[in-house]
Order: sequence, then structure tokens, then C-alpha cells
Amino acid sequence: MIRRALLTLGSILWSALTAHAGEPLPSWNDGTSRKAIIAFVEKVTDEKGGSFVPPSERIAVFDNDGTLWPENPVPFQISFSIDELKRRLPDHPEWKSDKDIQAALSGDLTPLLLDHYKGLFHIIFVAGSGMTTGEFDKNVHRWFATAIHPRFNRTYDRLSYQPMLEVLSYLRANGFKTYIVSGGGFDFMRVFSERLYGIVPEQVIGSHTDVVYELKESGPVLVKTMNRPFVDDGAGKPEAIHQFIGRRPIAAFGNSDGDKAMLEYTTIGNPRPSFGLLVHHSDADREYAYDAEPRSSGKLVAALADAPDRGWVVVDMRKDWRSIFSK
Amino acid sequence: MIRRALLTLGSILWSALTAHAGEPLPSWNDGTSRKAIIAFVEKVTDEKGGSFVPPSERIAVFDNDGTLWPENPVPFQISFSIDELKRRLPDHPEWKSDKDIQAALSGDLTPLLLDHYKGLFHIIFVAGSGMTTGEFDKNVHRWFATAIHPRFNRTYDRLSYQPMLEVLSYLRANGFKTYIVSGGGFDFMRVFSERLYGIVPEQVIGSHTDVVYELKESGPVLVKTMNRPFVDDGAGKPEAIHQFIGRRPIAAFGNSDGDKAMLEYTTIGNPRPSFGLLVHHSDADREYAYDAEPRSSGKLVAALADAPDRGWVVVDMRKDWRSIFSK
Repeated sequence: MIRRALLTLGSILWSALTAHAGEPLPSWNDGTSRKAIIAFVEKVTDEKGGSFVPPSERIAVFDNDGTLWPENPVPFQISFSIDELKRRLPDHPEWKSDKDIQAALSGDLTPLLLDHYKGLFHIIFVAGSGMTTGEFDKNVHRWFATAIHPRFNRTYDRLSYQPMLEVLSYLRANGFKTYIVSGGGFDFMRVFSERLYGIVPEQVIGSHTDVVYELKESGPVLVKTMNRPFVDDGAGKPEAIHQFIGRRPIAAFGNSDGDKAMLEYTTIGNPRPSFGLLVHHSDADREYAYDAEPRSSGKLVAALADAPDRGWVVVDMRKDWRSIFSK
Repeated sequence: MIRRALLTLGSILWSALTAHAGEPLPSWNDGTSRKAIIAFVEKVTDEKGGSFVPPSERIAVFDNDGTLWPENPVPFQISFSIDELKRRLPDHPEWKSDKDIQAALSGDLTPLLLDHYKGLFHIIFVAGSGMTTGEFDKNVHRWFATAIHPRFNRTYDRLSYQPMLEVLSYLRANGFKTYIVSGGGFDFMRVFSERLYGIVPEQVIGSHTDVVYELKESGPVLVKTMNRPFVDDGAGKPEAIHQFIGRRPIAAFGNSDGDKAMLEYTTIGNPRPSFGLLVHHSDADREYAYDAEPRSSGKLVAALADAPDRGWVVVDMRKDWRSIFSK
């Protein structure tokens, strides 16, 4: 009886606290996209409504490149990987016979985009193998501290999209677990995901290769290898969601055809209410405008065509977002 | 100011509520094992002490077979898999030429234990492939509803160790995230982990093969294949912990040599305070007594020899546990 009274009091206090918070999604103009996000969240959190989803099943998945930060002029992990290849080149004469590495070093990435970005992922895996996980983390930290984006003239960790950070916070404040499900390497993203997005390492899913455990005199290490590459893009996204999460998300956020399968898996025939959203890059002035450009690594063609039938929200970056980057 | 006052009041209420709970670990006799668990938890949760660990880093990993429930006369998923092979045999004439399957069907598992249980995992993967994830879940549910353990005469989902359920709850009440990291298949364990252990699917790591995504007329499906088998045992455990969690646990609980690498990874050279525990099956009357028996699928030899030097707690099931099974 005392316990119940205390719990009720606690619940009243909680309401009082949250009422102090401002309106959600302040960097979004109040158009259909913002309204759709809020309507979905209110629907699944309304205990009295017929669309209530218990907190443990409120799983939301986010692509990273092009959805939480830019993917131009190339995905940031490609910039990192090319810088790493240059730095380590003197110790790797065998790289001279690797066509993908030579293309990357020459700056012409076109051949790397063929065959579902096979070359791009090869570059990512080469730059992230042959060292321990601890050494790799150090390389990533060093790069973020020094590398500068060629257009925006900031370090890469200062280019997250403010409107999407607000979506992440808003979902978490409403009991959602937020995951990254991205073509980027999970070891790369885990270095910054908690600091930039508030997403802990265990909620970051991405492309990867095997690590190998060794107990050395100095302690246990995990060596990053090139074995068993897994590309977390396209059909790989729902496959990885099953392997890492083990149940269907109820909300999925992406920006390219590589996210189409993830949005399908989240929204088609889901016994729970579900939500899919695509960020359409329509803002050449403040960021980039692209969807079908053959030379862009990110493409939004098939998913954009499917959006109306699937009920997916298409964000018009230029109209929907008041600001692009976090301060 | 109001916010701070409300938060303080909330904190007082929380203390009042938790003070109503009884003593932790009531099914443990008050010996060195119980004391060691409690001392570790009190140490890492004491904000004023020098060993405080922030909640987000309080990750505890648990083996399943032999640690949270029995692994005799054979691991439960082997019983399930053999029952499944028998049920599906009429549709699979090709299984006649598979030596491992024939051994499993004959009841003589000895050849399956060779070469690090290669045959056992083959049986598990065969019984769990060639169907969608939804169909597999149904098979597992049906088996748990009907199959009976040969010695304890109960369904298999009523054989969790009560003292370990209390450890799981106690850790979670102290801000830990509890994970299963087991040789069992994650698709198998995820069917019951939340109901039996309070562990959600996304915190269950285990052996697995690839799934393949398909969008059918009826909606998206994931088909379980035999491709890219991963055995989550031995060195595979720290490797999988890195892939799925992305950081080192601070507490690890196991019972066999297959857990040795996981305990090493958790406790050797960890910059955080850490804890390792081995359940030693010493109770032939109430459960089983084994460690070095050549015919047992679970063995505790190398890890037991290392325990004193590593500071790992060795639970004497007979002396430490007041009761074995939950009611």
C-alpha cells in the first residue's frame, strides 16, 4: 500500500519533470514530416489506445551515413580509410598490386562503386585490419581530432544533423531503444556513437570482419582480420538486425536504396504499428542535393519510388529542417 | 531549482522503495561465494569509493548451459535438435549419408564431441536451418511445451537455477546490463530468455549461421541457412562479445573450459574492477557432479586450474546453493 502510494507519487513527479521540457523536434519546421514522427510516437506510447507498444519492443534503427551525418563528398569512413592507407603505405609494399587501394590513393573512387560498392568496403576492411581493436580505436580517435571536412571546414565529429539528434533524443525520452544499423564499420562508429548520438557501443550494428582472440603476456587482445567480411547494407541490414537484435524494429530511418530492405522489414506486415522515414537530400545550399546522380555513393531511387505505397515519410531536407548541423 | 528539488525527492523515494526489498541472493548459503558477489557489486556501485563503475559500463555476461540451467545428460539444445531431426527425417533422405546425424539419431554422441564439439554444432545448425526464423521459433515453442527432461521429469523451461536467477536480478537491480554469451544458438535461446531469465533478445549472444532476407508476397522473411557457421565457445566468446557488445564486460559467469577465454577477457588487465565466477558441478544428489569426465560434454579442468591465480570465484554447488531449481 505504501509502495503503491510512493509509486504514484513518483509518477506524478515524473510528469512534472517532463512537462518542463520544451516542444519536441525544435529544429524541424512544423510540416507533415514532423507531425508524422510525433503522431507515431504518441500513438505507440498511449497506454489507453489500441496501438500501444510495450517499451521493450520500441526498437528504432537508424542508418548513419546520409541519415545522421553527411555522406559527401564521400562517406566519412572512406576519407578516414584513405588517410590511413596513405599513412601506413610505407609498411605495405604489397598494396602496390591492389587495384582498389591504388584507385583510392589516386582519388578516383569510380571503380570502387561498382558491384555494390565492393571496392569501397575492401578499402574499409584493409584500413581496419592487421592490428588490435585497441590500436584501431586510437587511429580513429587521432583522425577525428585532426581531419577536416573539405567543404564545411570542421572536424568530422561536428557534422551531425541537429534535426536527427532531436529525433534520437525524442524517441529515447519516449522509451525507445535507438540503434545504428549502417554500412559503416561498427568498430569505427563505436568510437564516437555515444559522444555524438548518445548511442552506446552495444547498440551500433555495422559492417565488419572477424576478430581473433589472443591471450598475450600483456593481457587479452583481439586482432582485426580480413576474414569473413559482412557488408551491412541492402539485404544485409535486416539480416544483421535479426542477428544482433533478434526482433523486428518498429521504426526505421534511412536515406538511400541501401536502407530499402531495412524499411521493408520494419514496416511491411509488422504485427506492431510501424514507421519508416527517408531523408531526401534536397538542399544544395546548406548541404547536398542528390538522389539519382550516378557518381554519388548514396542513391535514393528505388526506395523513393516505393515510399508512397509503403507509407514511408520522405523528409525534404530543404523545407523540413530549420538548421542542418549541430552547433 | 524546482527540478533539482524534485530530483532529490525522487531519489529519497527510490531509496525508500528499494529498502523494502529483502536480502539479496536468498538461495545462496552465506559463504565466500555469496559474499564475493555482494562485495563486488557494492564496490562498483559505491559512488564515493575508488572502484565506482558508471552504470553504462556495468556489463555482465553469463554462459547458459551449465551456468543458468543444466547441460546434462546433454545440452538441452542437443535434445531439441535430435527430436527435430527425428521429426523431419522423412523429408530428408539425404541425411542418411550424414555421419553426425546418424550418430545423433543412434543416441551415441561420443563422435560428436571430437574436434571441439564439431559434430554437436553441426547437429544444431542442421536442425535450425532450411526454414524461416518464424518457423524455427514455432518449432522451439512446441518442443518446450512437450519435451520432458529424463531425470527431473519436468519441461526444460522449468530447470533454471534459482541461485543464478537471483544473481541476474541482483545485478540488474544494481544497474547492470545482463547478457547471455553461450555456445547455444541465439535463435534458440531468444525464444525463452526473456521469460526465463528476464534477458531481452538483443542481449542474447550465441552460435549462429547466416540468415537470408527475402521480400515475399506475404511480407519479409529471413531464411535460416547453414552458411558461415559461428561457434560461440572458447575464444569465440570474447570475439563475439567484441562484435555484439563492443566493450569489455566487468563480470563474467561460466562453468566450463569453454568459458575460460571469456573470463580472461573480462578479468585480466581490465582497467575497470572486474569479477569472474565458475559454477563447479559438485552435487550428484541434487543435480550432477562432473568436471573432468571424458564423456561429459561440459568440462571444467583448465579454467579450474587457473581460477586461484586469476582470482575467479569457484562456486561449490553442493555447499553454496540452498536450492537448485526454481519452483
